Amino acid sequence: MTNYFSSNFTLGILGGGQLGKMLLYETRKYDIRTLVLDPSAEAPCRISCDEFVQGDLMNFETVVNFGRKADVLTFEIEGVNIEALEQLEQEGKKVFPSSKTLRHIQNKGVQKDFYQSHDIPTAAYQKYPSKKAFLEGLQKGEISLPLVWKSTQGGYDGKGVSVVRTTETAENLPETPCIAETLIPFKNELAVIVARNPSGEVKTYPVVEMEFHPEANQVEYVICPARIENSVAEKARKVAEKVSEAYEHVGLLAVEMFQTHEDEILVNEVAPRPHNSGHYSIEGAYTNQFEQHLRAILDLPLGATESKVGGVMVNLVGEEGFTGEVVYENITAILQLKGVTPHIYGKKITRPFRKMGHVTIVNANLAEARKIAEEVKKTIRVISK
Amino acid sequence: MTNYFSSNFTLGILGGGQLGKMLLYETRKYDIRTLVLDPSAEAPCRISCDEFVQGDLMNFETVVNFGRKADVLTFEIEGVNIEALEQLEQEGKKVFPSSKTLRHIQNKGVQKDFYQSHDIPTAAYQKYPSKKAFLEGLQKGEISLPLVWKSTQGGYDGKGVSVVRTTETAENLPETPCIAETLIPFKNELAVIVARNPSGEVKTYPVVEMEFHPEANQVEYVICPARIENSVAEKARKVAEKVSEAYEHVGLLAVEMFQTHEDEILVNEVAPRPHNSGHYSIEGAYTNQFEQHLRAILDLPLGATESKVGGVMVNLVGEEGFTGEVVYENITAILQLKGVTPHIYGKKITRPFRKMGHVTIVNANLAEARKIAEEVKKTIRVISK
Repeated sequence: MTNYFSSNFTLGILGGGQLGKMLLYETRKYDIRTLVLDPSAEAPCRISCDEFVQGDLMNFETVVNFGRKADVLTFEIEGVNIEALEQLEQEGKKVFPSSKTLRHIQNKGVQKDFYQSHDIPTAAYQKYPSKKAFLEGLQKGEISLPLVWKSTQGGYDGKGVSVVRTTETAENLPETPCIAETLIPFKNELAVIVARNPSGEVKTYPVVEMEFHPEANQVEYVICPARIENSVAEKARKVAEKVSEAYEHVGLLAVEMFQTHEDEILVNEVAPRPHNSGHYSIEGAYTNQFEQHLRAILDLPLGATESKVGGVMVNLVGEEGFTGEVVYENITAILQLKGVTPHIYGKKITRPFRKMGHVTIVNANLAEARKIAEEVKKTIRVISK
Repeated sequence: MTNYFSSNFTLGILGGGQLGKMLLYETRKYDIRTLVLDPSAEAPCRISCDEFVQGDLMNFETVVNFGRKADVLTFEIEGVNIEALEQLEQEGKKVFPSSKTLRHIQNKGVQKDFYQSHDIPTAAYQKYPSKKAFLEGLQKGEISLPLVWKSTQGGYDGKGVSVVRTTETAENLPETPCIAETLIPFKNELAVIVARNPSGEVKTYPVVEMEFHPEANQVEYVICPARIENSVAEKARKVAEKVSEAYEHVGLLAVEMFQTHEDEILVNEVAPRPHNSGHYSIEGAYTNQFEQHLRAILDLPLGATESKVGGVMVNLVGEEGFTGEVVYENITAILQLKGVTPHIYGKKITRPFRKMGHVTIVNANLAEARKIAEEVKKTIRVISK
């Protein structure tokens, strides 16, 4: 058994954003040596790791050279050079999640095919190699409006995804390989995080609910536990476990799902890493998702996933109309509310809709947490000087 | 109102040990810029701060020059040059806790005089400028055996404190100014952490209990909440608040107390900073003590102090007979137990009784947490290679 704690063992992390930053709290807690690779010198991870390397995550040489310096390699973003991970694996390096898992996820067309071939319930879809093929398919009636269009590569934070209701919108989409999915009218959008270690130990977190703004059609709150029937929650956890088994991933797998009006569970998409829908766990769960990811990739026993108290998470995104040096207006006011913890990611520049931080609200009474979350949402503003 | 978050505002921290390290998790979470001063290049704080300065905390010039680079200055250890803090205050620098608070605490004789002059219940004592004077006082019957002897300066982690039961022990004590206290036979040793900000907002944490090993007379577990009657807990919180008011401190004040067999509360000693007795709060409390210290010294609203679940803390100290590169034996085994979080401070070398880390056990059922803590204590060993 490797001695990870206060030793020369080294964990390499590809990506130096907020997910990496929150993972570093845990490597510090366990005193595990870390290297981080990120293209930006201003990355939130630039401090707290033992060594920061500036470089391109999509460059084969850069990733291979970086990975050779680590004992175990993980990533906090899917946009990394897979061939480099494969090369490192061939050299005997441990990469968790593996290049194989990532290959089944990184491209959204491949991801959908994977669900289909593994009997995982998901919305009907068509794959198209180009915009032209997509428009032709639409005209031929292979898929009908309204639909959800997704770029197969590089989508992140809602980029590369569009709800298409008219032919005009379809014609204005970017030129890229894509998938077109049947638009599912859903009762709830749910998520379950599954942890799995190389020894095959598996644990699922409670089902969380993404509550949408009634008009803006944007996730406003992530709520744990989801306010749904137990039978639906059990079904969602079972589906998530099935997805986890199919991928045989190591580390975390965040499984986003729709609960239809008929209480069917359909898998929307997955991410093989700590996830926005699990941020509540830092304050809410017995074992937070970042510590859990670390336990999983190091083949340590997984921690308890249940909640200590109810949790609601609010994303702090840059307000429209503001670009420049960030100011968190009224942050003092929200600190007066019970059970409120702000997490500021450390990005100096705000832009409209940029994820700048999040706020967690915990309370033994979930309804009370939800009420306070609304107050937080109404009060704090991410603007520029 | 100063903009602390993702700005150029700079917090200076005197001392780079484990308390500083855990405080840095919070400055990272709030994205507050930090400088740390510590004599050791291997200090646990060397990463995670924005700038690490190696230097002597007791050197006037070093501390003044360091402090001038910060907007607010705090410390994680009492052994710092007070004259330098006074100089910085005169130059208009904010120092929290203030030099005045520290002056009333750093010297244990002054600390005891302070309790007496502020009507704070404490064990009877005598002060002596030298070992010779102490032995004469003992002979004259000013104070009688058994007694607790304390060096007035520099005591830390049980150093500089002795229970004296025989004249022979007294004669073998080191040559130093000291105090001699009546030995209090107590039912429980309790502690309360009080937070106070410059605006005068005050919050107390629940009473914790230090459970002693029945034979070794060493604190084995810190338990929150203390398993005592409500009336005693209320009394202890009231006494702690009174101490806090007397000091008019800014930041945290950890108040250690004895509960006598007659349920009297006597103050033993105080520390003006995050404290070992508050480590459970990282996992157990709505607002952990380190975030609370930060909120207090920055004059932000204080967070809720109540517990989410019961918590028990076990110190990880170096085992007798082992000196050298540290190994945490059986750490994997304790990770299998529910609600267990290890905190490894990052010291590479273990020595007998050196504080190397701590383990927190949380559980909705405190008795269950206490049982698991015993399992942790029996299982993990801090040894050398």
